[in-house]
Amino acid sequence: MKVGLIGLGKMGYNLALNMIDKNHEVVAYDTVSEHVERITKDGARGVDSLAALVQNMESPRVVIMLVPAGKITDQVTKEMGALLEKGDILIDAGNSNYKDTLARYAQLKEKGIYFVDCGTSGGTEGARHGVCTMVGGDPEALEHITPLFESISLPNGFLKTGAAGSGHFLKMVHNGIEYGMMQAIGEGFEILDKSQFDYDYEAVARVWNHGSVIRSWLMELMENAFSKQPKLDNIKGVMHSSGEGIWTVETAMELQASAPVIAMSQFMRFRSLEDDTFHGKVVAALRNEFGGHAVVKK
Amino acid sequence: MKVGLIGLGKMGYNLALNMIDKNHEVVAYDTVSEHVERITKDGARGVDSLAALVQNMESPRVVIMLVPAGKITDQVTKEMGALLEKGDILIDAGNSNYKDTLARYAQLKEKGIYFVDCGTSGGTEGARHGVCTMVGGDPEALEHITPLFESISLPNGFLKTGAAGSGHFLKMVHNGIEYGMMQAIGEGFEILDKSQFDYDYEAVARVWNHGSVIRSWLMELMENAFSKQPKLDNIKGVMHSSGEGIWTVETAMELQASAPVIAMSQFMRFRSLEDDTFHGKVVAALRNEFGGHAVVKK
Repeated sequence: MKVGLIGLGKMGYNLALNMIDKNHEVVAYDTVSEHVERITKDGARGVDSLAALVQNMESPRVVIMLVPAGKITDQVTKEMGALLEKGDILIDAGNSNYKDTLARYAQLKEKGIYFVDCGTSGGTEGARHGVCTMVGGDPEALEHITPLFESISLPNGFLKTGAAGSGHFLKMVHNGIEYGMMQAIGEGFEILDKSQFDYDYEAVARVWNHGSVIRSWLMELMENAFSKQPKLDNIKGVMHSSGEGIWTVETAMELQASAPVIAMSQFMRFRSLEDDTFHGKVVAALRNEFGGHAVVKK
Repeated sequence: MKVGLIGLGKMGYNLALNMIDKNHEVVAYDTVSEHVERITKDGARGVDSLAALVQNMESPRVVIMLVPAGKITDQVTKEMGALLEKGDILIDAGNSNYKDTLARYAQLKEKGIYFVDCGTSGGTEGARHGVCTMVGGDPEALEHITPLFESISLPNGFLKTGAAGSGHFLKMVHNGIEYGMMQAIGEGFEILDKSQFDYDYEAVARVWNHGSVIRSWLMELMENAFSKQPKLDNIKGVMHSSGEGIWTVETAMELQASAPVIAMSQFMRFRSLEDDTFHGKVVAALRNEFGGHAVVKK
């Protein structure tokens, strides 16, 4: 299949190689010309503009966007909406908020262009050798792109999730679960680290990966991380987040769904970004006011 | 190796079959005589008392206990302490609290008997075909039983965790992590279930198991559960717990380790056991007192 690809960052580049392997004809564009040159050497047809990308394809076009969520996705969607024709399919394989996706779907729907949302998991390794894809959109569009997605996804790693937005929603919830699992794993090792025992954490992660209930890819990643740094001495416990945990908590609030562990995992990430907290000052001040308890002076 | 086995419940029976497969000579005892008869037919030497178990073995004896944690483990340990000889090894492969283990270790140490703690994971299937074992105790005792444990555990599924108590401590923390992971998974599906989308949960679990970041044995179990009951209609959301989550939270408190997600997972289990809560009555009463907000009358 001829596939347009917008965005040749780490994920996009690896996905392009994956598609070339599977004998798809890739027409590729990125704002960084070096990225376009590189993928051209690897067998794609590189182009220097979105207009050129559209001109080098025939209707019904299938174009995948792998660009940063938010403003850039918005901008590329608008530009592509002006360039594509009725019946073409634009796929957002980035980490967009599903509400933005629903708005973009509606905008392109007016022009008869299909907007498909694809939640993508598995990192660059997955993008290269078999990705996990959760894809929502109109049934006829999903039908058309099924052979493409089956070829680039792991066996059983491609799911048509239903209506527009359902792919990005599912990916969002996936990341919320991921946050909770990661925090639980982190807390477990925290308890081991404060205990009276002297564990080899790499060996612990390894034994847990062989027959235990918590065996998982995340625990395999910890085995790998501890093999490089037995006590993670060179890493500070600052936990950044990329948005989808927050959206999951916001969504849980809107749906009135109890999700305290996912919410707490997100709050612990916020906490980790601060050296000191204002809530800590407030609690210390109150203890001093009612009980004369000493405060730690700044 | 000749191995004594006390306790022929689901775990003990499967572990006995596993040991027989690996050409160990199993001397087996259970208070339920039918259990002894069954394993005798399967190739073990069944005995009708702890004394007979000891008499049918030669020093240094290796005896595994797989009996319920708490009083029964206490009682069997005391009786075996009176029957075993200096240099013998008694292994508690049950889910004992590591503090109880440390006390039992000290008691038997006085008599020169080795007490070894083995955290066991993987369920009956693991016990039968390759278990995950985390084993703490004196180095010479661990050395002696290594060939036995390597033979019954999965490859890389056996770890000498260090000093006495460290095996049960590690298993406890494993279960704490498990509680957090399970609650995160539960909350994720809760959000999907309250969403505007119509997901096939079995298909969701399956796609998440093929290339996603949260692929795990627990997610495989959910795929299996949803394949039997697409919406879990016949299960009530009552979450029992078996003690190790509570111990993990208690331990986190003692060690002053922040483990809010594991603690919250345990609290959500308590909450699930109650149809109504007293804290709910208190909050409703307060809202009524200060704002005249209606309460739901009983």
